[in-house]
Amino acid sequence: MSSSRSVRKLEVAAPVPADIDIANSVEPFHVSEIAKDLNLSPSHYDLYGKYKAKVLLSVLDELERNDDGYYVVVGGITPTPLGEGKSTTTVGLCQALGAYLDRKVVTCLRQPSQGPTFGIKGGAAGGGYSQVIPMDEFNLHLTGDIHAITAANNLLAAAIDTRIFHESTQSDKALFNRLCPPNKEGKRKFSDIMFRRLKKLGITKTQPEDLTPEEVTKFARLDIDPQSITWRRVMDVNDRFLRKITVGQGPEEKGMVRETGFDISVASEIMAVLALTTSLTDMRERLGKMVIGNSKAGDPITADDLGVGGALTVLMKDAINPTLMQTLEGTPVLVHAGPFANIAHGNSSIVADKIALKLVGTGGFVVTEAGFGADIGTEKFMNIKCRYSGLRPQCAVIVATIRALKMHGGGPAVVAGKPLDPAYLNENVPLVEAGCVNLARHIVNTKAYGVNVVVAVNKFSTDTEAEMNAVMHASMVAGAFNAVICTHHAHGGKGAVELGVAVQKACESVNQPLHYLYPLDISIKEKIEAIARSYGASGVEYSEQAEKQIEMYTRQGFSGLPICMAKTQYSFSHNAAEKGAPSGFMLPIRDVRASIGAGFIYPLVGTMSTMPGLPTRPCFYEIDLDTSTGKVVGLS
Amino acid sequence: MSSSRSVRKLEVAAPVPADIDIANSVEPFHVSEIAKDLNLSPSHYDLYGKYKAKVLLSVLDELERNDDGYYVVVGGITPTPLGEGKSTTTVGLCQALGAYLDRKVVTCLRQPSQGPTFGIKGGAAGGGYSQVIPMDEFNLHLTGDIHAITAANNLLAAAIDTRIFHESTQSDKALFNRLCPPNKEGKRKFSDIMFRRLKKLGITKTQPEDLTPEEVTKFARLDIDPQSITWRRVMDVNDRFLRKITVGQGPEEKGMVRETGFDISVASEIMAVLALTTSLTDMRERLGKMVIGNSKAGDPITADDLGVGGALTVLMKDAINPTLMQTLEGTPVLVHAGPFANIAHGNSSIVADKIALKLVGTGGFVVTEAGFGADIGTEKFMNIKCRYSGLRPQCAVIVATIRALKMHGGGPAVVAGKPLDPAYLNENVPLVEAGCVNLARHIVNTKAYGVNVVVAVNKFSTDTEAEMNAVMHASMVAGAFNAVICTHHAHGGKGAVELGVAVQKACESVNQPLHYLYPLDISIKEKIEAIARSYGASGVEYSEQAEKQIEMYTRQGFSGLPICMAKTQYSFSHNAAEKGAPSGFMLPIRDVRASIGAGFIYPLVGTMSTMPGLPTRPCFYEIDLDTSTGKVVGLS
Repeated sequence: MSSSRSVRKLEVAAPVPADIDIANSVEPFHVSEIAKDLNLSPSHYDLYGKYKAKVLLSVLDELERNDDGYYVVVGGITPTPLGEGKSTTTVGLCQALGAYLDRKVVTCLRQPSQGPTFGIKGGAAGGGYSQVIPMDEFNLHLTGDIHAITAANNLLAAAIDTRIFHESTQSDKALFNRLCPPNKEGKRKFSDIMFRRLKKLGITKTQPEDLTPEEVTKFARLDIDPQSITWRRVMDVNDRFLRKITVGQGPEEKGMVRETGFDISVASEIMAVLALTTSLTDMRERLGKMVIGNSKAGDPITADDLGVGGALTVLMKDAINPTLMQTLEGTPVLVHAGPFANIAHGNSSIVADKIALKLVGTGGFVVTEAGFGADIGTEKFMNIKCRYSGLRPQCAVIVATIRALKMHGGGPAVVAGKPLDPAYLNENVPLVEAGCVNLARHIVNTKAYGVNVVVAVNKFSTDTEAEMNAVMHASMVAGAFNAVICTHHAHGGKGAVELGVAVQKACESVNQPLHYLYPLDISIKEKIEAIARSYGASGVEYSEQAEKQIEMYTRQGFSGLPICMAKTQYSFSHNAAEKGAPSGFMLPIRDVRASIGAGFIYPLVGTMSTMPGLPTRPCFYEIDLDTSTGKVVGLS
Repeated sequence: MSSSRSVRKLEVAAPVPADIDIANSVEPFHVSEIAKDLNLSPSHYDLYGKYKAKVLLSVLDELERNDDGYYVVVGGITPTPLGEGKSTTTVGLCQALGAYLDRKVVTCLRQPSQGPTFGIKGGAAGGGYSQVIPMDEFNLHLTGDIHAITAANNLLAAAIDTRIFHESTQSDKALFNRLCPPNKEGKRKFSDIMFRRLKKLGITKTQPEDLTPEEVTKFARLDIDPQSITWRRVMDVNDRFLRKITVGQGPEEKGMVRETGFDISVASEIMAVLALTTSLTDMRERLGKMVIGNSKAGDPITADDLGVGGALTVLMKDAINPTLMQTLEGTPVLVHAGPFANIAHGNSSIVADKIALKLVGTGGFVVTEAGFGADIGTEKFMNIKCRYSGLRPQCAVIVATIRALKMHGGGPAVVAGKPLDPAYLNENVPLVEAGCVNLARHIVNTKAYGVNVVVAVNKFSTDTEAEMNAVMHASMVAGAFNAVICTHHAHGGKGAVELGVAVQKACESVNQPLHYLYPLDISIKEKIEAIARSYGASGVEYSEQAEKQIEMYTRQGFSGLPICMAKTQYSFSHNAAEKGAPSGFMLPIRDVRASIGAGFIYPLVGTMSTMPGLPTRPCFYEIDLDTSTGKVVGLS
């Protein structure tokens, strides 16, 4: 357990400068130095410039026999719209473990969408003295994974409309002959991918000429029901005008118009596949079995039915390798995958976590963040991600702020872009105490998985000792293993040393197996109801559409999948305005959809926007390149 | 002039194996070896894996005082739909110069669009024993430049529709206040980019509060005429259903629907900007002055008016660095930019050529390919690309095949996917001789620029000596410097040694300055007419729409730009069926458009498709990943 060579300790300034100024004040180590500290040799990674490298998945095979390090997930209480610093705490904790506590540590983070970087939100690399650097490379392009997802997603979309078009203008026989053209010797043959469809149809013949006319029809005519298509196009840009569009209006498309739309790229099922896959072979299978809609007879149509599962895998072959970067204090970070936290599961990739656990080895730490509040992020981490990975966390951190707890205690609404009410700036212990019901429920829910829970109070300069003591007391009463104050935003790793020590003890003293919230072999409704109860709901109400979909997925054989709830993160309930720890409500399920390739069913609790917009004055007004230095300016 | 260390000579097999099998039979050198041969140190480039590196533009400053090598452009005669092997000849010539003639050489190629790779066409890395490797990396993603273009193009598109939307719902004052929000001290200020618009409007005030209400309106309200918008969205996928679409049909867009469409990404003006820019500063200016449409008053609206020129530059900052790869024989290749050859100028980037010329130095060679036939590709290379770069080629190669010459001599139609007529497989010297009128006109036109012309006859196995002699004779009569037979497809560089020697002599003995076909300071119509005459036209007919556009661009001050004709490559004329060397026809100009940021006006001679489609059985049916080895299979 020798000290990493690349770590640095920060000289911090007060007041804390702007994020970009802090990020630019540090000259990053060459990423090969970061890799060397993890005992990675140049054959284990591909460089992408000086500060990014893709760690090759083959490292996993090489380290197969190594023991895993400790596995820590960072979730949060129900947040305000301003965010409570979950990413920042994740980074700060790792800086503490690596640069101050002399532990091997890897931070596993999601790749942010590029869209919001130019919209309202700005970047997502942490903040203050707890950041991933270089910040511009983290927020823009990275190593091209999201671009690969966009390309793959849209190739599949093009294949769908084109196939319907070609089926509409050709006889079964002509279609079949085009799909299996004669080779130079005049002989027709099936391409490899066609055997997947033949197998699905129960046809065991291997020569095109042996198929009966009925088999030719079954094989060649997918007969996609345009109304049933759930596959949409994607773009990594905040383009609200693409939310709902009509395609096919060109004269050559002969009137085959269709209403559809674009989502932002990170909402693509392919992003969820990337996050949940465990190997190249597994990714090939998941991409091939993604369902794009149904045939008119009601059977699911997959990417492999369209002949494109292999091409999608080829487009994604480099994306499966996580990207190595570094924190401000030189500790290693693996950035990989960034699925939506509502319609998908909001966690970074399984492969990054697996590689990281082997790289840190016994006594080391992998800290991974779960998107949204713990009711969604940590729940999905446990029941979807850990279920698919087989990994077992020892400790869950819950990030809390005095600000958010006051809101849950009954404080005035917190609105982004508007000044905070004085209630949030002056001491008010009763308000904090009242709000701790929200924290307590997150602690109880999280502890039920069999992990030790550490509460991290992300301290703001206006927070008082009495307020913080109230939180720590409430945490311990609710069953937390420990609760500590952190100042990593202002002080870097040094501000999270106490958190690091608490996490270490929590990991070392865990003594239960991992309990999932629900088994997979119960019905879709039973699974939904188990999750709803963890929110405090007394029951679930299904719309007619939801009932229909549940019935369909059950009939299609998909009821054994885990559930990925699409619910607001701003309340335990479906109503964002209900703060604290609501209970006794009926959770309404508006619709139920599925990501079959990724491997989950997602019930919609309310309307989820999957394509953000740009405000009147987007962030991009400030962003430019200093062409004399080549540096990015104005990124926040 | 010492031998490069990384070159290898190929062992060739007969008959020539499949392209992918040849590509996979060679283990590429680590790209750092290729870089070292060019005297590039690791500080001069960023690695992107083991076989690709981005050469940093800053190399140009370092080598400023070095002399340039010889500059060779490869064009072709008017091709058949099967292509006559221009890329293959470009690569083969370089393999000959580097691996057999002991010359420093760099091949400069366009980055292919990813769309066609999965459609009909397959990859574009050359063929046979003259290829760029690794072939899959060349054809897919490369180093993300096209993805960066897609992101930048679509950010601008989103900014346009969103701005119109926000202008439609806000008063001038509210709009202005949102655009210049108060900072923490309550003071409003302009962001840097806003001073570009203020300057354009002739407003010299620097404080928002000093603007008069009229100035507030002029500044804040772009008043874009939706009918005038020429900026379309792009995607690097063959998605015909996006050619014509309606956007804005979501309820939140409040009925602000608009008809528009997607082009394939390489048709984006940003691709043309990348190809024609000469520095980061120049790229910033070109991106900012791209015109997306007009205000209702008829004034051009630019990316900088929308506040997004800086963000576009940030998205493109790495794309400006060319990608270093290698040929099968280990000679260096710079891959950079791939603008459409019809609506844009179809040549690889100026910066790659400039860097390459410095890297090879005196006595070395840079060979760059011009898309389409020489009537379009070489013409645009000279009059647009060389005009912006200030570079001067010494030699132009014209690639010819017996097959294409027979077609021009009156042979039956050549159709992709159908067997060749026997006329093309058996000796027919008179047919070849008759077809040489096409070659002769390309020679005369190209020679007029003041370069020496070398004809490269790309030999097929069915070509006879008498046929080839006829071509060589006709070439010399038409004024070629030399004409030689090449067999680089079958033999690699060894098959192009004679071509290499001829090119070297042509470069060494050039004795005229570069003559452009037209000066810039004549009218748009005079320029169009000069180009039309080079096609053999006796005059030009303008549609009403073309007249209107020419008048508008002239009024807006853009008449000094060079002209980029959007014409079929399958004939000198506008009619693809007219082979040989037609003359006396009137060239019809259907419409006239402009890429103001890239820097050219493009008249449309006929309809140009800017979004390809997928066939019934696309290439993707064969493409898959061998998940046990991680290798791509089925790419052709």
